[in-house]
Amino acid sequence: MSSYYLNFRTSIPWVILFLELVFLIRFLFFFTAVDNIYCSFDSYPEFQDVSHMVVFGFGFFLMVLRRYGFSSTAFNFLIVVLGVQCSVLLEDLLHFLKVEENAVGLKSLAKALVSVTAVVISTGAVLGKANPVQLIVMALVELIVFNVSRWINRTFLEVGSELTLRHVHLFGAYFGLAVASRFPEPSPGLDKNRSTPKSDLFSVLGTVFVWVFWPSFNSVLTDSKEEAVLNTYFALAVSAVAAFMLSALTSKDGKFSMTHIHSAVLAGGVTISYTAPSISHPWIAMILGLLGSVITILGSHCLQRCLNPPLKIQDTSGVHFTFGLPALLGALAAVVLSVVKEGTHAQWNDLSSLGLLIFVEVAAFCQTLSTALVTGFVTG
Amino acid sequence: MSSYYLNFRTSIPWVILFLELVFLIRFLFFFTAVDNIYCSFDSYPEFQDVSHMVVFGFGFFLMVLRRYGFSSTAFNFLIVVLGVQCSVLLEDLLHFLKVEENAVGLKSLAKALVSVTAVVISTGAVLGKANPVQLIVMALVELIVFNVSRWINRTFLEVGSELTLRHVHLFGAYFGLAVASRFPEPSPGLDKNRSTPKSDLFSVLGTVFVWVFWPSFNSVLTDSKEEAVLNTYFALAVSAVAAFMLSALTSKDGKFSMTHIHSAVLAGGVTISYTAPSISHPWIAMILGLLGSVITILGSHCLQRCLNPPLKIQDTSGVHFTFGLPALLGALAAVVLSVVKEGTHAQWNDLSSLGLLIFVEVAAFCQTLSTALVTGFVTG
Amino acid sequence: MSSYYLNFRTSIPWVILFLELVFLIRFLFFFTAVDNIYCSFDSYPEFQDVSHMVVFGFGFFLMVLRRYGFSSTAFNFLIVVLGVQCSVLLEDLLHFLKVEENAVGLKSLAKALVSVTAVVISTGAVLGKANPVQLIVMALVELIVFNVSRWINRTFLEVGSELTLRHVHLFGAYFGLAVASRFPEPSPGLDKNRSTPKSDLFSVLGTVFVWVFWPSFNSVLTDSKEEAVLNTYFALAVSAVAAFMLSALTSKDGKFSMTHIHSAVLAGGVTISYTAPSISHPWIAMILGLLGSVITILGSHCLQRCLNPPLKIQDTSGVHFTFGLPALLGALAAVVLSVVKEGTHAQWNDLSSLGLLIFVEVAAFCQTLSTALVTGFVTG
Repeated sequence: MSSYYLNFRTSIPWVILFLELVFLIRFLFFFTAVDNIYCSFDSYPEFQDVSHMVVFGFGFFLMVLRRYGFSSTAFNFLIVVLGVQCSVLLEDLLHFLKVEENAVGLKSLAKALVSVTAVVISTGAVLGKANPVQLIVMALVELIVFNVSRWINRTFLEVGSELTLRHVHLFGAYFGLAVASRFPEPSPGLDKNRSTPKSDLFSVLGTVFVWVFWPSFNSVLTDSKEEAVLNTYFALAVSAVAAFMLSALTSKDGKFSMTHIHSAVLAGGVTISYTAPSISHPWIAMILGLLGSVITILGSHCLQRCLNPPLKIQDTSGVHFTFGLPALLGALAAVVLSVVKEGTHAQWNDLSSLGLLIFVEVAAFCQTLSTALVTGFVTG
Repeated sequence: MSSYYLNFRTSIPWVILFLELVFLIRFLFFFTAVDNIYCSFDSYPEFQDVSHMVVFGFGFFLMVLRRYGFSSTAFNFLIVVLGVQCSVLLEDLLHFLKVEENAVGLKSLAKALVSVTAVVISTGAVLGKANPVQLIVMALVELIVFNVSRWINRTFLEVGSELTLRHVHLFGAYFGLAVASRFPEPSPGLDKNRSTPKSDLFSVLGTVFVWVFWPSFNSVLTDSKEEAVLNTYFALAVSAVAAFMLSALTSKDGKFSMTHIHSAVLAGGVTISYTAPSISHPWIAMILGLLGSVITILGSHCLQRCLNPPLKIQDTSGVHFTFGLPALLGALAAVVLSVVKEGTHAQWNDLSSLGLLIFVEVAAFCQTLSTALVTGFVTG
Repeated sequence: MSSYYLNFRTSIPWVILFLELVFLIRFLFFFTAVDNIYCSFDSYPEFQDVSHMVVFGFGFFLMVLRRYGFSSTAFNFLIVVLGVQCSVLLEDLLHFLKVEENAVGLKSLAKALVSVTAVVISTGAVLGKANPVQLIVMALVELIVFNVSRWINRTFLEVGSELTLRHVHLFGAYFGLAVASRFPEPSPGLDKNRSTPKSDLFSVLGTVFVWVFWPSFNSVLTDSKEEAVLNTYFALAVSAVAAFMLSALTSKDGKFSMTHIHSAVLAGGVTISYTAPSISHPWIAMILGLLGSVITILGSHCLQRCLNPPLKIQDTSGVHFTFGLPALLGALAAVVLSVVKEGTHAQWNDLSSLGLLIFVEVAAFCQTLSTALVTGFVTG
């Protein structure tokens, strides 16, 4: 395996070079509307925040394990940079196939950055198991599948383009879990997966970093920025407080557990990401944040013992509880809220359209789960 | 005491839960003008900067002591998140009692974040002495007292709403000192209060972090942003240079002392915080920054030996010199500048209004000192 | 030498004090148009980003060597703060001598921050060799020479004011190299120049930090912000990917070398800095980024062995490859692009104006090289 791996490894620079050339050629030839590309984009500070958060925050956030300080930050950076270009390329390809109108300029970069978040989340699940080559291949496959999944949602289910991007946490988490489940069980003698107090500290710092920039993340692509920022902030604040509270309740001696805080602080932000721009009362955002935090802590407390061994889920940095479960809850909440909104609007008369609405959202779930299974086989 | 403390400790999650419920109910029922809450707020980047600074900068800034790396960052985060919600709640309560018009949306969050700075500063004074439970109780008490103090200033002394918020450094520093003076003297054998080169380095990094974002902090709530940013920047720059200079002068071998830099770099920003939006010449801002730095270094050099032992002031991370003295100087400068401005405007005729102006500012001082004494007893 | 050095050292606070007084007096008396100073400046977020990047990013970026953690961050901070004031003062002096129209308010601060980048880059070349006193003297001399060089470019060569600021990387890198070549060879027994894995990690973090904020750096002073941001982002992305790729290709076992990544990731941003606002097709930006990265890696791989020993170039943190060579390439690209643009515009008729254009740019090169030589003698 070693020489096979070395051969594979030396081929990686050429793969990257090939990708770069494709990307260059795409910009060289396929730009018909070149005067549009430098159009105005008035949320540059939010874009900068998101870029800062994805590159830095997640880099630290993933620094849980002792031996992967460099790998989690440098490879995170490589994957983000490569993924952004790949994502712009894919979106342009869909545009070329007349599938959708294309976002240009900074907005297309912002969409690419948000897409890359799925890859970064998946990286968290396979951290310490995959080597760099596998990470890069996984990143490319995942971006392609995610864009195909978005395209299906948009074309056949007629979900709005921005809504499809919000499946990014759900997709990233379950894709990562499916990939991770194909890796062999690590031998218990190895201490690769142990965390040290110092790496834990860096990880909590990364979490707080991501926490601070999350409102920008949820608001960068929406038109109703004020609502998105405010709702996200309330949900995050409640979620963070609930994380500390529940962490003290579930541990025996009332101490705060770093692992709980690490996963539950962000739960509110993930939960609210589907509905942040459309919620019209802060208390709904706060209840969602509270529920997200509760489901994360309880999930990590109970399910980790019962569920993981039989299903052979290997979840190095708690991606399932940090992003998977809250995203499920958020999608559920999005269905309920849109049904209630439609229902009160139409006075509960037009039940068939409500059913369609529910069907559309459920179909998006199946999408995600099926792609996760498919790619689990591919990478395995 | 141990079992009492354990009982107390286990009650904390319930206290947090109760607070969260109160906060939820407040949003559920008391919102009459719900269409206003998502009003536009055009300084989102400044808000983001302040959020970043309060959560991160102060978290690192307080990381002076060797053993409190995690406590100073994680508890700082918990206190900020809890404090912001509590502060929004208190402001809404004052609004409910028909005391003042309420700021809505992001502006109310920004005001809450600025209020929480008082708590964070106080935390610096009791760091290493108080346990988490005491910190949370102190945060809640301090926020209530600070809002009452602001309410008195606003109602009886007719100070503007934004000016009352600028007492945040003064209040935070002396409240923290009063609380810290009630704690028992630490036994000299313990090395809890010693700083290591590494924690010192993190602390200096945190200082620089806070330094970078201070212009946003001073300008987030004012209307004349350009003046506030520019004056703060000049004051900070002069203050930082003076800090290095004085640190080299006061030490024997001309070396820079980390402790001096740690406290004096920010002095200019604290001194200018009262007057940043109203100063019309940069050189006034620069002189204020210089004076703030001088008073901090001299204070930390001379007073620490003479004053602290008799008055039993225990000041773990130099809060008195970093925030207390420059804030006093800033308040004094604000009085002088407003008197000069009024005087030149009215050609020194209307001396009674000048006396009233001076009286109002002096009364605000008494406010702060009395509340500090009161709460020293409460927490003791 | 020791007592001489001590005398010199104790004089530094007074030098700083003198500078501060000059700066104060300048603001006190020479402001004729004082009502203009608080004029509106609509890119405050970009200014904040640049400030954050220069103070923090470069502070970490230079933290390559084991023993200079504190010196590289704290002295970087001191030099930036002092340099900004000195730069504002110099620009005002030029304004006083009727040389150019003056930028006021935040824009003048932004220009000063960009100028200071030259000093920060030079600091990287002499890191570990110069003591603080030498660093401060070097910073002052360099700022004066840089402003004189800009003034010559502006007056005699009639280059635009913003274009002259873009020579900042070129000037900083070669000035630093010239100064470093006058320092004595370090004795091989000393381990001052060795880097540790940890300082390497911090250095890579600093690089990524600077990477994230580079688009703001290139766009803060231009009018066509969208173009500058987008072109810089594309160039940086390609450059970062190429850095990883080439680093894997040039090393024997296909591993990524931290030193290569450290220097090549930013090469694209440096290369594009001349032309970011004027490039009208993203693929040009991408090719420039790719070339910048290639020239950096090849330079650091080949030239380091052949060129450095004969020319006695001592380059502690790879300033020559990170900033010098890409800046040369960028200046070259700027000439080629402007010639092509002018040529296609005038249909290659007006060859004399093309010659003038080339002459102007070449003259700017001679400028930089001559000043580097002159100041190498001065500081030596």
